[in-house]
Amino acid sequence: IHGNGLGGEAVVDVRIVDVTPRDGLQDAHAYVPVADKVALVEGLIEAGLTTVEVTSFVHPKWIPLLVDGDELVPKLGHVQGEWIALVPNERGLERALTAGIGTITLVASASESHNRANLNRSRKDTLEILSRVSERAHAAGLKVRGAVATAFTCPFEGEVPLQDVMWVAEAYLQMGVNHIGVADTLGTATPQAVKGRLQSLNSVRGPVPLSLHLHDRFGWALANVTMAYEHGVREFESALGSLGGCPYAPGAAGNLDTEKLLEFFAAQGISTGVNVELLQGVRERLFEALRRNLPPPSP
Amino acid sequence: IHGNGLGGEAVVDVRIVDVTPRDGLQDAHAYVPVADKVALVEGLIEAGLTTVEVTSFVHPKWIPLLVDGDELVPKLGHVQGEWIALVPNERGLERALTAGIGTITLVASASESHNRANLNRSRKDTLEILSRVSERAHAAGLKVRGAVATAFTCPFEGEVPLQDVMWVAEAYLQMGVNHIGVADTLGTATPQAVKGRLQSLNSVRGPVPLSLHLHDRFGWALANVTMAYEHGVREFESALGSLGGCPYAPGAAGNLDTEKLLEFFAAQGISTGVNVELLQGVRERLFEALRRNLPPPSP
Repeated sequence: IHGNGLGGEAVVDVRIVDVTPRDGLQDAHAYVPVADKVALVEGLIEAGLTTVEVTSFVHPKWIPLLVDGDELVPKLGHVQGEWIALVPNERGLERALTAGIGTITLVASASESHNRANLNRSRKDTLEILSRVSERAHAAGLKVRGAVATAFTCPFEGEVPLQDVMWVAEAYLQMGVNHIGVADTLGTATPQAVKGRLQSLNSVRGPVPLSLHLHDRFGWALANVTMAYEHGVREFESALGSLGGCPYAPGAAGNLDTEKLLEFFAAQGISTGVNVELLQGVRERLFEALRRNLPPPSP
Repeated sequence: IHGNGLGGEAVVDVRIVDVTPRDGLQDAHAYVPVADKVALVEGLIEAGLTTVEVTSFVHPKWIPLLVDGDELVPKLGHVQGEWIALVPNERGLERALTAGIGTITLVASASESHNRANLNRSRKDTLEILSRVSERAHAAGLKVRGAVATAFTCPFEGEVPLQDVMWVAEAYLQMGVNHIGVADTLGTATPQAVKGRLQSLNSVRGPVPLSLHLHDRFGWALANVTMAYEHGVREFESALGSLGGCPYAPGAAGNLDTEKLLEFFAAQGISTGVNVELLQGVRERLFEALRRNLPPPSP
């Protein structure tokens, strides 16, 4: 982890990983140009965030709005921070290495149907590919995060069994990932479901830290954060203005809002190192960039 | 506790005490006539609620919209349920006894300024009066609940020290109350604050159960419910349509919404015995009664 731009790593109680440039913009109403994305990341870091998920090295056929990752990452060289990019396969890893990213996130879904919709292959084939990606990434000195998508519910299958979540998580642990991310892709997780998953994950993860990636469909996200915090989770993913949602998960809600999450922690005396007031300006400038780039209305 | 109208007490994981007729309507935009209040309580019980806070036996000078408690309670004789009324003093207890209520709630604030604004006397004088009320009520066979208002923050003093909450709670325990209610009057409580209060209360309360009374100012109420549930609280107060708020607590938000709370529990497999669909109709009819009785616009 690089510093927060203040010349040293601040000691905080929880780390907020802002996923606005990736999850927040992957399905937005407008393409945000690279210069605005650079300004966004600069603003996030200036506000005190240290870790940003900046892009996804997937084929632009699947996520056209993130076509510019290869161009974006090298342009962040002047900003101190940890940049994360999603990598679905070996081609993605090559792009990540060329771009010079320091941390990658592997993605597999706990549910078979969402994995096929999202990645166009079975979970088993996905995990085999990711295992090779992980090995090469580690050899190249990258940090590797393993994300478990649809860890609670699947848009096609409904409730996802805990054993499927554990199966993917254990595959990641076998790969020696540095981190496991638990994602409520649809925004339907409840505190009791979070508790069940975290208790099981805590029993197998050893020293590998967990993060929680929440969408906020019913206003339950902060209750889920509360339960996760009580079960030792100290890293949460969120996006500015609740932007985002998976284009291959019909019905998915926007991400948990970064400012809302920060205010929630601040009110409890749980430090994040982030200045919410500064972040408001960053969010306003991002929304202005989105408006400026809206496509013309359809005829 | 009487039955739920189905001829027996349902076994549930948590009990929801609906406070719509009292807290929900005490500061409403319109006076709801007694007949509509009776229909409201009938509807709540039909939907599966067993316990309703129906009125407050305070002087109508202070809470004019609840002027009709003496008339309302006897009209509920045909409905099976546990009715609760707030009682601030001995005069209120006399009205409660005459009306035939089975359970009373005593109220004192943890903060001195709110206690004076709400009850026009010091906390110490309040607790002395409530001690006499409690003794007489117990002698008359009533159940007595002790509510700690402003248990988190005060509109005039800000943060309320934990020791002040404990001081009021311990006075209630001395009185032999059957129940202690912890009220976030302003709606600013956070999960960590809830945890701190509950841990202290759990260490002194013995077998006396706790409930949590929440207002939902920042969207944190369900997170607070989550923390309270993890610390053993099995009773929560809420109101239909988020109605309510203390007229003597400037800035107070509406009550935690009963339907929202029920859906939150249902999604977690935590049973409440309440049919949310039936409750929607009850809420719609109540809002219709409120609209029907709106005062004419000011000139």
